[in-house]
Parts: sequence; structure tokens; C-alpha cells
Amino acid sequence: MIIYGRQPVREALQSGLVLRIIIAKGVEVKTEREFRRLATKANIPTDIVPRISLDQNLGTARHQGIAAELEEVSLAETETPILLAKTRKERLLLVVLDQVQDPRNYGAIIRSAEALGAHGVISEQRRSSPLSAVAIKTSAGAAAHIPIAQVTNLVRYLKELKNQNIWIYGASTASKNTVETFDWNRDIAIVIGSEGRGLRKLVRETCDDLVSIALKGKSESLNASVATGILLNTIQNRRNKST
Amino acid sequence: MIIYGRQPVREALQSGLVLRIIIAKGVEVKTEREFRRLATKANIPTDIVPRISLDQNLGTARHQGIAAELEEVSLAETETPILLAKTRKERLLLVVLDQVQDPRNYGAIIRSAEALGAHGVISEQRRSSPLSAVAIKTSAGAAAHIPIAQVTNLVRYLKELKNQNIWIYGASTASKNTVETFDWNRDIAIVIGSEGRGLRKLVRETCDDLVSIALKGKSESLNASVATGILLNTIQNRRNKST
Repeated sequence: MIIYGRQPVREALQSGLVLRIIIAKGVEVKTEREFRRLATKANIPTDIVPRISLDQNLGTARHQGIAAELEEVSLAETETPILLAKTRKERLLLVVLDQVQDPRNYGAIIRSAEALGAHGVISEQRRSSPLSAVAIKTSAGAAAHIPIAQVTNLVRYLKELKNQNIWIYGASTASKNTVETFDWNRDIAIVIGSEGRGLRKLVRETCDDLVSIALKGKSESLNASVATGILLNTIQNRRNKST
Repeated sequence: MIIYGRQPVREALQSGLVLRIIIAKGVEVKTEREFRRLATKANIPTDIVPRISLDQNLGTARHQGIAAELEEVSLAETETPILLAKTRKERLLLVVLDQVQDPRNYGAIIRSAEALGAHGVISEQRRSSPLSAVAIKTSAGAAAHIPIAQVTNLVRYLKELKNQNIWIYGASTASKNTVETFDWNRDIAIVIGSEGRGLRKLVRETCDDLVSIALKGKSESLNASVATGILLNTIQNRRNKST
């Protein structure tokens, strides 16, 4: 995928998904210098091409002399996370989202999941944030490095996981059992509910158990991406300890 | 503070800062019913007032018959978090921000800090997000329940904390010591760096030690509010264990 325009390319560079920067011959010296410097900083190549070929490739002359090729972010198969865990010889750690609708939360969860070593992020197609440009940008490049899949029916999918001896834990502030109290040395999926409403009833009932984070203030819940980060970090830490 | 208009009031309700909803006499039945229901849900009162008195109070007739009184969120004194910890007979747990500029990150950090039992959030006046409407909204009501203060010089402030026997820990991905490896049974302040650039050199050098979160993916860092949540949750959990 190619994007163009100075500001769009500047912003895309923050996502970590830019493979190379394309600069049209004859662009202002100041602009060329800026984007060469950005490319060096991001450790990616720059290509200088005739302006006319950029016009033709993009089908427009409104590119301000600057374009960028982006890494493709595409949805994975639902089996990919399980295969990834097997390849890495690790216990499965899957993040399942029940109607997380805010693309910034979706992107932040993808970033946390990738950084903390989860094997995939699964959500339902309907009533969930799509893998939009905003989500990809908020993931700060992580969306390209972790399998992201969508399923048509979340409850059916969770039941399939259970048939494969994967344990399903729903994040719920209502649970008296905090994340520190469980044995995480098994293949697991953590289900995160939507902003405000938490897990749907049927999803909650499909979980093997519910897990909470010990809160001490007046706030009744944490942001979904913060909760995901705390759960994953604690799980990974407790897995390390017991091995 | 009074705000007005249907959509602004709907959004303010999500912040948890609305004290009461004001409805003008003669507003559409559907609208009255909606806001009465929202008030019941939020457990706050509704006042029915003559439309003319609402016009006069607000200095405008463009209120659509709906207004709301908001809880004041104001900055605290820098000493307040320390007094709060003493009052609660708890070891101090302070969140200090080094140039966190995104108001959504600022608000999310305030929410995590309040929910996880920190005693305050301190930032520098210049080059940091102000306590704006966006920050307050993202805090989901938490901004009213935790002392938030701003200082003119962060390094000087950290030195003053050290003089009071408070230990300063800077969050840094470069540290080999993860949050699980420290003894947190002391009065501490955790310093969180800006998005992208981390801690400034002088701030980093003022810290007693640097603390990291164990990352396992290709992402080199976590979102600032996620990192804050993980650090605070781990610290609180380890404090609990040893008492």
C-alpha cells in the first residue's frame, strides 16, 4: 500500500509500518532533507523517482513530492495464534475481545498484547472496532507483528477453544479472584469486555472462570487496554516464576 | 460549573462528574424522559426549572432545555498527596509525569493511578498536557478523586522529595531490573516519561533507580498509561504480600 502527502507520511512513520519513503525529483531541498533524515532515523531506505512516474503510479499529482510504501496489515486465520504458540513452544496466551468498539482501545490492546508476548488478538466481526487506520496507528507498529483475527460468533469460537483444552478466563471487576491467585501454567484465553458494559452474559457464562484486578480507589474499572496490560504482565510473570 | 446542550450533557455523564441534571419546563417529553432515565442510572437528582430562569442563568437560550452542574476539578497543592498517604497510614505511592503531552494519556494515567490506590499525580507546568476537558473525560471521573498537582521545575521537585526520604524510581525500558525485583515497602514516586522519548536526561539522573517492565515482543515500549497501570498494580501487589 502506498500513501502520499507530507503530513500523512510523517504520521505513518510513527506507526512503524513504513517500508520506504519515495521522494520526487525536484522537491524543495528543505523537504527532501527532512524526509531523508526521518528515513535514516526509522532505518528505512529512500527512493528518488521522477515526479512524472510518481504522478502515474498514484494516479494523482497531489502528492507534494512525498510518498511511502506501507507494510500490509491483514487479518490472520483463527488457528494462527495456536500454531504460533506451538512453534515457540510456549503455553498459549490469547487475548479475546468482546465488543471493544473504540479503535484507539483496540490498537492499544494490540500493542500491549504484542509487547507482552501474547500469541494473538481475536474479536467478533460485528459490533467491534475494525482493524482501521486509527487502530493500526495506535498499535504503534505492533499490528504487523501479532496475529489478529476476527470470528463471526464469539461464543461458538470460545467453545471451540474449550474443546481444544484451552482455558477461558473472563476479565470481570465482579470476580473476587484476582489475577495473582491463579495458576497460569496452562493454555489460556483472556476475554476482555467492552468499555462501560463489560462481558455479555452469554460470553461470561462460557468462561471457565472470572478474574479481576485488585482496585483500591473509587473508580470501578480500568481502561480496557490498561486492564489487558496488567493481566498479561502478571500472567507472564507468574509463568516465569514457576518454571 | 454549568454546561448545557443535550449532547454535551450526555458526554459529561460518562465522566462521572455530573452532580445534577437541570431540565427546562416544557422540553419535549421524549427528551425529558431520556435525561430523567440517565439521572436515575447515574444516581443523581434532576431539577425542573422554568425555561426563562435557565436562559438567564446561562446567559443564552441555546441550551435545548438541558443543562448539568459539574463537580469542580481543581489542582491540588504538591504536599497534598504526602498528607493523604499519612492520613491513610499507607506508604506513599506517587505518580510523576515527565512531559506526558497527550491529554488522553494524561487522563488515562489519572484513572489508573486513582483506581490502583496511588496518592497523587504530579506533572510539570510547561510542555505537559493541562488538566483539560479531554483529560478529565478520559479519566472517567477519577480526576475528582485523586490529588493532581503541577510543579514549575520537575527536577527540583524530585530533589525535594528525596530530601523527605522518598525514593524516586524512573520507568525506563533500558533498565535490566523489572518491577518485580524491587522491595516496594518504602515511600516512593514513580516517574513516567513522555510518549516516544522517555525520561529527560536530567530527570533520569535524579532518580534513585530505574525500573522496567519485561517485554517479550518486537514493540520497544508500552503506552504510558498501560505502563503506569502495570507498575502500580505490581507495586501494590508486592506491598500486600510482605505485610
